[in-house]
Amino acid sequence: MLKNIPSILSPELLKVLMEMGHGDEIVLADGNFPSASLAQRLIRADGHNVPDLLEAILSVFPLDEYVDKPVSLMQVVPGDNTKPTIWQEYDKIVQASGEPFGEFEFVDRFDFYERAKGAYAVVATSEGALYANVILKKGVIKV
Amino acid sequence: MLKNIPSILSPELLKVLMEMGHGDEIVLADGNFPSASLAQRLIRADGHNVPDLLEAILSVFPLDEYVDKPVSLMQVVPGDNTKPTIWQEYDKIVQASGEPFGEFEFVDRFDFYERAKGAYAVVATSEGALYANVILKKGVIKV
Amino acid sequence: MLKNIPSILSPELLKVLMEMGHGDEIVLADGNFPSASLAQRLIRADGHNVPDLLEAILSVFPLDEYVDKPVSLMQVVPGDNTKPTIWQEYDKIVQASGEPFGEFEFVDRFDFYERAKGAYAVVATSEGALYANVILKKGVIKV
Amino acid sequence: MLKNIPSILSPELLKVLMEMGHGDEIVLADGNFPSASLAQRLIRADGHNVPDLLEAILSVFPLDEYVDKPVSLMQVVPGDNTKPTIWQEYDKIVQASGEPFGEFEFVDRFDFYERAKGAYAVVATSEGALYANVILKKGVIKV
Amino acid sequence: MLKNIPSILSPELLKVLMEMGHGDEIVLADGNFPSASLAQRLIRADGHNVPDLLEAILSVFPLDEYVDKPVSLMQVVPGDNTKPTIWQEYDKIVQASGEPFGEFEFVDRFDFYERAKGAYAVVATSEGALYANVILKKGVIKV
Amino acid sequence: MLKNIPSILSPELLKVLMEMGHGDEIVLADGNFPSASLAQRLIRADGHNVPDLLEAILSVFPLDEYVDKPVSLMQVVPGDNTKPTIWQEYDKIVQASGEPFGEFEFVDRFDFYERAKGAYAVVATSEGALYANVILKKGVIKV
Amino acid sequence: MLKNIPSILSPELLKVLMEMGHGDEIVLADGNFPSASLAQRLIRADGHNVPDLLEAILSVFPLDEYVDKPVSLMQVVPGDNTKPTIWQEYDKIVQASGEPFGEFEFVDRFDFYERAKGAYAVVATSEGALYANVILKKGVIKV
Amino acid sequence: MLKNIPSILSPELLKVLMEMGHGDEIVLADGNFPSASLAQRLIRADGHNVPDLLEAILSVFPLDEYVDKPVSLMQVVPGDNTKPTIWQEYDKIVQASGEPFGEFEFVDRFDFYERAKGAYAVVATSEGALYANVILKKGVIKV
Amino acid sequence: MLKNIPSILSPELLKVLMEMGHGDEIVLADGNFPSASLAQRLIRADGHNVPDLLEAILSVFPLDEYVDKPVSLMQVVPGDNTKPTIWQEYDKIVQASGEPFGEFEFVDRFDFYERAKGAYAVVATSEGALYANVILKKGVIKV
Amino acid sequence: MLKNIPSILSPELLKVLMEMGHGDEIVLADGNFPSASLAQRLIRADGHNVPDLLEAILSVFPLDEYVDKPVSLMQVVPGDNTKPTIWQEYDKIVQASGEPFGEFEFVDRFDFYERAKGAYAVVATSEGALYANVILKKGVIKV
Repeated sequence: MLKNIPSILSPELLKVLMEMGHGDEIVLADGNFPSASLAQRLIRADGHNVPDLLEAILSVFPLDEYVDKPVSLMQVVPGDNTKPTIWQEYDKIVQASGEPFGEFEFVDRFDFYERAKGAYAVVATSEGALYANVILKKGVIKV
Repeated sequence: MLKNIPSILSPELLKVLMEMGHGDEIVLADGNFPSASLAQRLIRADGHNVPDLLEAILSVFPLDEYVDKPVSLMQVVPGDNTKPTIWQEYDKIVQASGEPFGEFEFVDRFDFYERAKGAYAVVATSEGALYANVILKKGVIKV
Repeated sequence: MLKNIPSILSPELLKVLMEMGHGDEIVLADGNFPSASLAQRLIRADGHNVPDLLEAILSVFPLDEYVDKPVSLMQVVPGDNTKPTIWQEYDKIVQASGEPFGEFEFVDRFDFYERAKGAYAVVATSEGALYANVILKKGVIKV
Repeated sequence: MLKNIPSILSPELLKVLMEMGHGDEIVLADGNFPSASLAQRLIRADGHNVPDLLEAILSVFPLDEYVDKPVSLMQVVPGDNTKPTIWQEYDKIVQASGEPFGEFEFVDRFDFYERAKGAYAVVATSEGALYANVILKKGVIKV
Repeated sequence: MLKNIPSILSPELLKVLMEMGHGDEIVLADGNFPSASLAQRLIRADGHNVPDLLEAILSVFPLDEYVDKPVSLMQVVPGDNTKPTIWQEYDKIVQASGEPFGEFEFVDRFDFYERAKGAYAVVATSEGALYANVILKKGVIKV
Repeated sequence: MLKNIPSILSPELLKVLMEMGHGDEIVLADGNFPSASLAQRLIRADGHNVPDLLEAILSVFPLDEYVDKPVSLMQVVPGDNTKPTIWQEYDKIVQASGEPFGEFEFVDRFDFYERAKGAYAVVATSEGALYANVILKKGVIKV
Repeated sequence: MLKNIPSILSPELLKVLMEMGHGDEIVLADGNFPSASLAQRLIRADGHNVPDLLEAILSVFPLDEYVDKPVSLMQVVPGDNTKPTIWQEYDKIVQASGEPFGEFEFVDRFDFYERAKGAYAVVATSEGALYANVILKKGVIKV
Repeated sequence: MLKNIPSILSPELLKVLMEMGHGDEIVLADGNFPSASLAQRLIRADGHNVPDLLEAILSVFPLDEYVDKPVSLMQVVPGDNTKPTIWQEYDKIVQASGEPFGEFEFVDRFDFYERAKGAYAVVATSEGALYANVILKKGVIKV
Repeated sequence: MLKNIPSILSPELLKVLMEMGHGDEIVLADGNFPSASLAQRLIRADGHNVPDLLEAILSVFPLDEYVDKPVSLMQVVPGDNTKPTIWQEYDKIVQASGEPFGEFEFVDRFDFYERAKGAYAVVATSEGALYANVILKKGVIKV
Repeated sequence: MLKNIPSILSPELLKVLMEMGHGDEIVLADGNFPSASLAQRLIRADGHNVPDLLEAILSVFPLDEYVDKPVSLMQVVPGDNTKPTIWQEYDKIVQASGEPFGEFEFVDRFDFYERAKGAYAVVATSEGALYANVILKKGVIKV
């Protein structure tokens, strides 16, 4: 543990967030996401939910201003009646982070899997809500 | 060994079952299956048959409700007269597991090999019955 | 995630608990414990506290009945006025687990470090309470 | 699987048995033995009992004729009333193997652990009987 | 060394033969074959010839009955007058093995190289005869 | 790079600082220190001096309050007239960090080497000043 | 550290520069470049800017005379008004190096990423200026 | 060092030469060749020239008689006036080796790079002459 | 395979013989020797006997002239009536090698094991004769 | 290859020389030295003699001024009449290097082996002269 760094950010996760550059993506995956089979770099966060992790990450991680929608969610599969209420929670957390943000990008389930394969890392949480996966695209640190 | 976990599930196998996510597949292979040449992750279960393993796995592993047939078998090769009686045993075990299940999907031998290559893991048993290979597709844990 | 297994138990942690045998020890370390420098096998559980982890572990892990005190705590260093209230929480959790348990063993700080070096694994939590480290000694599964 | 080789002998186990030389020892450990923490080379045989494995191993493995007692068991700890009936089963299996054998050597629990540390390999079974661990000392193949 | 296993079968080679399944292939390569550049798994048998190895392997290894010609040889390159007399020796060894066998399949040199790339393993002998390479296709163990 | 984390702290260095626990030590070594031969974990910071690194590290790293002197320097070797002026710079940086600090501990050259061998990590800078090595002992994060 | 070699060149960086041959490329990346996700070989130079590194590298590294423009920069993205003043600094450093040099090659952002993927190495600096990435193509040492 | 083996052949190089089979190629690369970026297996011979190495290699290495030109050189790039005098030296060494040899094959620079990528190994010398790279194709040992 | 190098010397074995220096020892072990448990570097030569290997090794390997007896054998264990006739064969081979040699050193069984642990390498043959192990001490190559 | 760095210094050797710090030692070993069995880090320089390497190393490597004799040689073994003339060559090279140097330290053969075990690296040359081994102790770079 260090001063002023949220303890939910593990040493390995913080290292990965630091290594990422402009345009690299990270997936915060829920507990049912096939994280281990898709990830180039897998970081486990068993027992945690996505909102706690999202808030901690955004305290150190800039979002990409070069794209319109730097935060992406997985679209509900056609025919599925789920109404993911967790998205509103995400909206509040991103707004509160002070990072520039308008609205979410929505990505089809299988396109989402492709994005996850290309992402720099996938964080495997135990989030129980459905359609709770998030992709963050890293922005630029201005010195 | 732990409390309430069948001892036939090795530490490595249980770890793999936990790592798998929605839609990932695992192959329970008979003793003549080319497991080592096809598997991305190979788990050996020498000396065991498939029914014992299948029953133990289904005690912890949910089947996928997003597809019609989450359990697949290898079709008898045309011209081969084998009548795999072991399939009825599998049917009883899956029914008894309480997982949602209608009927098996049947997959051509060489298509089965391709599925095995893409599977998250292959468990190599010593099952002596022919056409005894099974693919399980993982479902969602509802919290 | 699997059926009936607490999600705070990561695949790696469950694997390690399964691999341990009679008499092997595991340390649940607080966030200030020098886990990485002492552990033979290090399992990170950043962002978690010890009580949640302790309760989950004891749902699958037997305590050793061949010793008097299978659960050990780190003694308060002489001259330090800390009164670790978390110990009462631990007491309740162990009692509730159904495992045979009388009272805790107390171990001097530097002896505790030596025990940690010899332990099968150390789980590094982010527990903020002081003197919150615990050693569990594994018992026998009776078949 | 190969012709005339019992399927309970995994590829890795047979390789290890072949690599061993005169005087090297192998431990067949029960399910509660701390196999993973003591073994130089760990071979898992989850879900199997010791008698099945012992019989299969002795079909290919010679016992050492240069020592009086090439098969060793763990002595019952003083104060423990257990009467291990599995030892008679072991006796029959060793007699039936055709290997030269008089009686077992009995080794104190902690001495047994030291022997296990020095052994070439430990096979971790799920044997549920208590005091069911066995050490075999390899003999010479006469050409 | 073990009882009843030919000593020319190294621990690693026997392990590989056991791991192979129905339809997997192994190449017994002569001393001039580019074994190390083509093999997925390379097993060296320096100083040995192919007939000794072939005979030992067939004592434990079943040939594939699902194909017409489970044993393949490298065709003499057009324009080369070599008459490989070693093939008759191979014919006798395969006949004597009791495995079902009619005649050899002949494979063009560069097709043979492609088969070797796809084979489960290549055994690099020091066989001095030309065109002495052999591919064996593994069959099924019937229990 | 991340928000509010000095860029001189590399991903690997920050990870190591996070992994360290109460009482663990880290060496900031000058350019002539035998870092690579003594370090358990070596982190290179070529081209940097010690003061810049020290200041950045103390912005996140607590010093140990359980010992009198949590910052140690290498004593000038008897007979050497060097007067290390860099020590005053260090004193200012540590004072400014807000960490509790009285005065430096001075350690004999060869004792310093022994401490470095036991340290969790050594950071190899290119500091050109003589006797510029520093050991920091980590304290406790209070939640 | 060695005589006459700038200390900003780490042992690993100098090794990589030596290993490179005629036509191989190295990227000096700014702090926001996705170095870790694109690099075949990643060399970290956290806390350093590009000009210091560029000057040090060109003191030992020849530029390619077989191409017109052996030094490449990333073009400003259309619509972005940034005027990278750091390019003039680069121009002076390259001129002063004595290596043959006329003008820079300019490469589109995504083409630049492709070049980085094919480069022998990427050096990740903490340079804060935008569009500060440089590719150097290695020339021939004449003996 | 061994009896009758030239000391310029390192243990690793001799091992590689032995492992190669009929038709495998090895590149003797000059000091400016991009050996490390192209080689499947890289063997460094820093400080050595190509002729010394070529002579030593041909004392143990047969050239391929199944192709017309088993020794290949890199063609001078069109527009370059270099006249590589070292080729005559190579011609003498190959003639003197007793291996069957008529004339060199000449390969375009970029085709040469492709051949190097497919070669079994590349030996990186410090040869200063230009166009001094050589490819040798291995022949058959006749017993 | 290479010109003038016996094919029984595998690439790995020849590499090891080259790496050895003055005073280093190599063990030629019979098929019952515990080679795998004692060797620092294990080289398998399954299916071969010791005399063939000994003769091939001595064709390239010098014996140590700085000691009286550079070739050592394992003494017959007291009480064992074996008369190892293979020793006379060894004597002839060493005499014929041209290396300086008077008589064998005889080493007690357990001292021999200690020597094997310290040896640079152990070659595991399938030699069936008893007491057939040999230690060779390497001499100096005179240039 | 780089500008102004002798090509006999391989990338790996230069890296090692840079990593070494004050007081670390490197051995330049002759062709008969047991380099591979003693070295913590082994760098091969097959085909080279010691004087060429010594001269190249001293062009970048400072000798230790804190000890009297930073260059050590292996004493002639009592009873051996060898008069190593190569030592005078070494003397000239060290003198010419400009490094402070009075006379050599002489070390008994077996003490020399112990020093080699503790050295940061051993460079294995093919030097044919006897008693040609050298130990260099690294000094301080003054900035």
